[in-house]
Amino acid sequence: MGWKVYFKFVVKLPKALSRLIESLQRLPGVGPKSAGRLAFYLLRTPREFNNDLALAISELKEKVRICSNCFGVSEEELCAVCSDTNRDRSQLCVVERADDVLSFEAIGGYRGVYHVLGGVINPLDHVGPEDIKIAELLGKVKNKEISEVIMATNLTMEGEATALYIKNQISKIKDNIKITRLGSGLPMGADLGFADLATLEKALEGRRVW
Amino acid sequence: MGWKVYFKFVVKLPKALSRLIESLQRLPGVGPKSAGRLAFYLLRTPREFNNDLALAISELKEKVRICSNCFGVSEEELCAVCSDTNRDRSQLCVVERADDVLSFEAIGGYRGVYHVLGGVINPLDHVGPEDIKIAELLGKVKNKEISEVIMATNLTMEGEATALYIKNQISKIKDNIKITRLGSGLPMGADLGFADLATLEKALEGRRVW
Repeated sequence: MGWKVYFKFVVKLPKALSRLIESLQRLPGVGPKSAGRLAFYLLRTPREFNNDLALAISELKEKVRICSNCFGVSEEELCAVCSDTNRDRSQLCVVERADDVLSFEAIGGYRGVYHVLGGVINPLDHVGPEDIKIAELLGKVKNKEISEVIMATNLTMEGEATALYIKNQISKIKDNIKITRLGSGLPMGADLGFADLATLEKALEGRRVW
Repeated sequence: MGWKVYFKFVVKLPKALSRLIESLQRLPGVGPKSAGRLAFYLLRTPREFNNDLALAISELKEKVRICSNCFGVSEEELCAVCSDTNRDRSQLCVVERADDVLSFEAIGGYRGVYHVLGGVINPLDHVGPEDIKIAELLGKVKNKEISEVIMATNLTMEGEATALYIKNQISKIKDNIKITRLGSGLPMGADLGFADLATLEKALEGRRVW
C-alpha cells in the first residue's frame, strides 16, 4: 500500500526521492500524497534548509534528555519546571506524554509540577503497568509531601483505565491525599448538535451552579 | 507568530527540540501544532529511523538530478520517460512542476513525453516568461517533429495565462501544430450543489454528445 500504489504506473522515480517519500510517509498524519508533496517541496528549497532540517532530526535524540524527576523533555538533568524553585511541589499533574506538559504550560496558570507516564496501560499493545512510570509515581506519592494528584491522562478508554488503576494504587499506600481527574464535558465553542452522546452525558452530569 | 505563540508560556523547551519544530513548521501544510506533534513523534522513534530520514533529506538534492531534456526529476542525465524508446515523441505534455509528471504517469494511459516549465508566469512574484523553461519549449517545437502540444498547466489564473502565452508564442513560430488544453468541468464524483459557478459554466460549455 501507500505511495507506491498511488504512483503505481510511474516507471522509475529517482531512488533518493522514493526513499525520502517512504520515510516521510511513516510520520503521523502524513499520507502518500503529502509525503510526495513534501519531498518535491524539499527538492525546491535551498540546500541549507534541507541540511538544517536533517541536522535537527539527527541530533534530536542526542541533544534532548529526559528529566530524571518528571520524565518530561529537558536539556539538563532536571527540566525547566522541575528546577524552578517557584513551582508548587505539593501539586502533581500526571500526564501520558511529554508534549502534554507543554499544553498545560501553554495555559500559563498551573503552578504545580508534572509526572510523565510515557504511555498508558494498553493490554492490546502489551503495555502493562510496569512498562510506564507508575512505580516512580507511587514512590513520589509515598515519599514526598504531595497534597493533590491531578490525573490528566487522555479521556480515551486506555487513559481512563490507567487513571483509575493509578487512583486505586495510590489509595492503597496513602490516605488523606486528594486525587482529581480533569473535568469533562463540552469543549469551548462547541455546538450541541454536533456533540456525541457520551460527551453530552458528561456535560449534564458535570453541570455547575452558575 | 507560529509555535512560539502557541506555546507562549512554555518556560524553556530544549533548544534541539525548538530548532526542529521551527524547521518543520516551514514545510507546506505543517502548522505549529503538527510541527510540535511531529517533533515529539521523532523523539519516540528509533534512532535509525531518524538517521535514515535525516540522510534522505540531506542527500536529496545531491542525488536527484534534473532531466536535461524534459526538466523533470531523474537519476541519470535523461529521465525514465525521456530515455524510454517506446514513448511517442510527437506528443508533448507541458506541465508546471516535476510532480505533475508523476500524476499523469499514475493514470497510466499517456504514451507521449513531457516538458516541465518549472513554474508559471506570475508578475506579482516577479516571474516572467524568461524565468521558466519557455524558450526551451519553443526550441523543441521549432526543431523537433511535434504534432501535438498538450497544455497541462494548472487551471489557476497564472496557469491559464501561462498556457495562453505559450500558445501565442507557438503559433508565431509554427503553423500546422495542434495545441490542446486540459478539459475542464466537474471533477468525477462531484455533487452539483457544491460546484462553483465557473466550474459549472465550463461543464455546460464542454458538454459532450453522449
